[in-house]
Amino acid sequence: MRIGFVGLGNMGSGMASNLLRAGHEVTAYNRSQDKVDALAAAGARPARTVAEACDAEVVVSMLAHDGAVEAVTFGDDGILASLPAGAVHVSASTISVALSERLTAAHGDAGQGFVAAPVFGRPEAAAAAKLFVVAAGSPEVVAAMSPVFEAIGRRTFTVGDEPKTANLVKLSGNFLIASVIESVGEAMALVGKAGVDKQQYLELLTSTLFDAPVYHTYGGLLARQEFEPAGFAAEGGLKDVRLVLAAGESLQVPLPIASLLRDRFLTLLALGGGHLDWSAIGALAERDSGGDAPTA
Amino acid sequence: MRIGFVGLGNMGSGMASNLLRAGHEVTAYNRSQDKVDALAAAGARPARTVAEACDAEVVVSMLAHDGAVEAVTFGDDGILASLPAGAVHVSASTISVALSERLTAAHGDAGQGFVAAPVFGRPEAAAAAKLFVVAAGSPEVVAAMSPVFEAIGRRTFTVGDEPKTANLVKLSGNFLIASVIESVGEAMALVGKAGVDKQQYLELLTSTLFDAPVYHTYGGLLARQEFEPAGFAAEGGLKDVRLVLAAGESLQVPLPIASLLRDRFLTLLALGGGHLDWSAIGALAERDSGGDAPTA
Amino acid sequence: MRIGFVGLGNMGSGMASNLLRAGHEVTAYNRSQDKVDALAAAGARPARTVAEACDAEVVVSMLAHDGAVEAVTFGDDGILASLPAGAVHVSASTISVALSERLTAAHGDAGQGFVAAPVFGRPEAAAAAKLFVVAAGSPEVVAAMSPVFEAIGRRTFTVGDEPKTANLVKLSGNFLIASVIESVGEAMALVGKAGVDKQQYLELLTSTLFDAPVYHTYGGLLARQEFEPAGFAAEGGLKDVRLVLAAGESLQVPLPIASLLRDRFLTLLALGGGHLDWSAIGALAERDSGGDAPTA
Amino acid sequence: MRIGFVGLGNMGSGMASNLLRAGHEVTAYNRSQDKVDALAAAGARPARTVAEACDAEVVVSMLAHDGAVEAVTFGDDGILASLPAGAVHVSASTISVALSERLTAAHGDAGQGFVAAPVFGRPEAAAAAKLFVVAAGSPEVVAAMSPVFEAIGRRTFTVGDEPKTANLVKLSGNFLIASVIESVGEAMALVGKAGVDKQQYLELLTSTLFDAPVYHTYGGLLARQEFEPAGFAAEGGLKDVRLVLAAGESLQVPLPIASLLRDRFLTLLALGGGHLDWSAIGALAERDSGGDAPTA
Repeated sequence: MRIGFVGLGNMGSGMASNLLRAGHEVTAYNRSQDKVDALAAAGARPARTVAEACDAEVVVSMLAHDGAVEAVTFGDDGILASLPAGAVHVSASTISVALSERLTAAHGDAGQGFVAAPVFGRPEAAAAAKLFVVAAGSPEVVAAMSPVFEAIGRRTFTVGDEPKTANLVKLSGNFLIASVIESVGEAMALVGKAGVDKQQYLELLTSTLFDAPVYHTYGGLLARQEFEPAGFAAEGGLKDVRLVLAAGESLQVPLPIASLLRDRFLTLLALGGGHLDWSAIGALAERDSGGDAPTA
Repeated sequence: MRIGFVGLGNMGSGMASNLLRAGHEVTAYNRSQDKVDALAAAGARPARTVAEACDAEVVVSMLAHDGAVEAVTFGDDGILASLPAGAVHVSASTISVALSERLTAAHGDAGQGFVAAPVFGRPEAAAAAKLFVVAAGSPEVVAAMSPVFEAIGRRTFTVGDEPKTANLVKLSGNFLIASVIESVGEAMALVGKAGVDKQQYLELLTSTLFDAPVYHTYGGLLARQEFEPAGFAAEGGLKDVRLVLAAGESLQVPLPIASLLRDRFLTLLALGGGHLDWSAIGALAERDSGGDAPTA
Repeated sequence: MRIGFVGLGNMGSGMASNLLRAGHEVTAYNRSQDKVDALAAAGARPARTVAEACDAEVVVSMLAHDGAVEAVTFGDDGILASLPAGAVHVSASTISVALSERLTAAHGDAGQGFVAAPVFGRPEAAAAAKLFVVAAGSPEVVAAMSPVFEAIGRRTFTVGDEPKTANLVKLSGNFLIASVIESVGEAMALVGKAGVDKQQYLELLTSTLFDAPVYHTYGGLLARQEFEPAGFAAEGGLKDVRLVLAAGESLQVPLPIASLLRDRFLTLLALGGGHLDWSAIGALAERDSGGDAPTA
Repeated sequence: MRIGFVGLGNMGSGMASNLLRAGHEVTAYNRSQDKVDALAAAGARPARTVAEACDAEVVVSMLAHDGAVEAVTFGDDGILASLPAGAVHVSASTISVALSERLTAAHGDAGQGFVAAPVFGRPEAAAAAKLFVVAAGSPEVVAAMSPVFEAIGRRTFTVGDEPKTANLVKLSGNFLIASVIESVGEAMALVGKAGVDKQQYLELLTSTLFDAPVYHTYGGLLARQEFEPAGFAAEGGLKDVRLVLAAGESLQVPLPIASLLRDRFLTLLALGGGHLDWSAIGALAERDSGGDAPTA
């Protein structure tokens, strides 16, 4: 397929490479040009504007937050203005439910397709084409996008006809990951202060009931206190918790653990740790029990 | 080995049966006699008093709470008074760190061995000899107990020289399970209110980052709202959260998620749901978002 | 002074009446005309548009939320477009810190003065000219507004040179009120379940360390379970907690009690109680201990 | 009256002095003798054992925690063994509801009277005979104790026929005080980070809705960061929160703010601040927003 790709960050670079590798014709755009050059070396057509990347059947956007998605979509010469009628915008970013609704309406009015397809996985998984894709939108449009999803991920889950449902599910997943970080952080602060070796404790957990990637990955980062470089920065974690709380507010669903997580992220940012991996919030329990801060 | 077994509840019955099946000579005691008769039919020697069960090399106790363990251990003709010097008390119950310290000291004074060996697993796992055993105590005594552990579990983790460490690790594990229940309950309240099918949502979770027994088991109970009969009752869950908080207090480790869990269990009990499976606390998020209570 | 008044709700009607009573020339605007007619009967000049109310030295706005203030200020023929250069906009509404910053900049660019002057007090206090006014802005402009403040309140506190400071202080005050509601609600759930009479309990509190209007007023509403009609509706309470949390987020200050309050308000709204007095969140502790919901 | 007084700490010394000043014959006991000597200089009869202090019509005990009350009451030659039949034990300590029940039963069995009469007020108020007394017990016995209450306090509230009710009410009051400390601490962290002067902010609060001793006293300590010497130490605050949570647990009443307070106290203790005034927990919000810890 002829695919435009907008946003070549930690995640997007790997995804775009995998689209190339799968044989698609990719035109790539990024705000800073060096990432584009790197991908061009791998066979992509470089785009110097968003509009150039929209000369395609599908444009995939993968950006850090609502503001960035709004800028590339609604701006002058943005996706909305540049994408041909009948072409499809696949939004892989983790964005708010509210923005997803707005994108759905705007693309619909413009005669363009819109699919929300946020992904689970860290940069290593993006590079290895092992992402999990959570997709929602009109069934036929979602089905037509399967070559895209197959190129970037290991499995696709279709969760509904309304794009925003995929965004809600993705946000809820990030909430569950952060819940694991916090709870394992509390447990490690407890057993660690009693002298139990954290690495051995993690091995016990992950050999039994907690044998899942989320415990292996985040438990390992916590046991090793390995918060740099960030796979996903705490600032992004705060953003996602804010979005899940906003979704809860509009659905009138209180989420007490999410409220606690928000306070943890704010503390980490106030301590100067916004650039650390989001797993660093799990080290705040230790700080509150007399240990060092993750920023120390 | 000649093994006494005290406490033939949901968990203990399966464990004692597996000791028999492994070829050990088991003398079994239970407060209500019918459970003893059932096990006698399978080859156990029935004991009418705790003291009778102590005519053994090892006595295993598996009881519901600190009070029950204290009663069988410190009471007249209890384990402490009846067990021969050199024999070993294996405490498999989930008890407080403080009681574990007290048992260690008392058995030491009496020239008896003491090993804490709480287990992870629900009654089905106990029946199938698939428990995970978390053991701590003097290395040689723990080593000598391996035939016992092999008969009841699939794997044993030795976590330290002091028995109380095993109890702390076990309590921390129950805390992590309850954290999963609460966080999945919140996530399901959120996506459920948006119309996502909970069973399908769970499948997505358990096919990706959350592919661990704890999510399969408790996520399934929550998706199906299947809280009866209880594998582990909410009253027991409250007890364990209370014990983990007490351990945190004595180590000066605040555990904010445990505090939240305690409030959830109290709410469930106040609504009349103390007999429900402890996973029912995960349904309180839905109650707080306008849905039914798990006791409705 | 020649004063325009925009927003004749529960609070604004009393404030505008008091401005009239103090001898000011008041031109009053409200979205629904009946409130304007009532005030006209008391001597106000009726305005059929916001612009008409802006033919004045000062325009006071008193509206329910950010959206309403934005509409009357930035809309076509709004305050910004209509107020003469050199005249002053006094914003008495409880609005976000962010909107206050935006208003400050916009009025500054237009050569108009801007003062934030949110008030403490319920509708009875507004009617009785007993509000407490929290003002911030350029010192000379704030000073020039003292006839306005004296007419509506019993005391004015000037808290800084930047208008947004007054909004932050006001929001923090509403946070403290809601904290009192929640804590007294929890305490009453506790002693009430033990058989203590709530009214007598409140008398004890307010005769001792807690002898302050906030305990008399909100403790009384809770003891009598008197949540209708609302002096200030729960929907407004949720809005204010959201704004205080937003202010905390932009200053990187976690506010765990505010997080808890947010969850309480969401629960109350999910139960259908958004129209009740905000003190009704204090009855949720009783609901969680097995009592009735405030919406029952 | 002939009054024995057991426990001459910060609070007890002032109370015993005031009993002397009111003309009562006081025999005083304290574990460390120097406090007894000081009171003897003021006219008290010194007691070298608890039993000596029990040669009286009334014995008042004022101790720091359950353990100390148990020791002087149930110990050999304790109050229970030494007090004449018909004489009355007035327990002014802040103790658990459970211990109060146990004391009621034991004194009843011994033919002695028992009244729970915990007090509100800090050491200054104890010295000035300005305590508030919360009393409960058999109406005639409580009535007979009014000379005691009048000598030590400014007002007495009788809250029920069962002594434990007074203990519950007292604990709930300490919970409300700690809630004020936490909420004001959060508010000051917020407005302080925005540049508002805390002392001026407190003046605004206490001039308006929050004009109560609890805000003056604790708000002042927080604004001045004055945590030493402790009027009431954080260790005692943790104890009281633990007791209010225990009371909530036995009544099945979840108390989320109390849960948060418990975590705050544990953090303060973990940081080495157990000896600081309990108001220091209010400074943890500032620590979590990037400021100094109260122990720094």
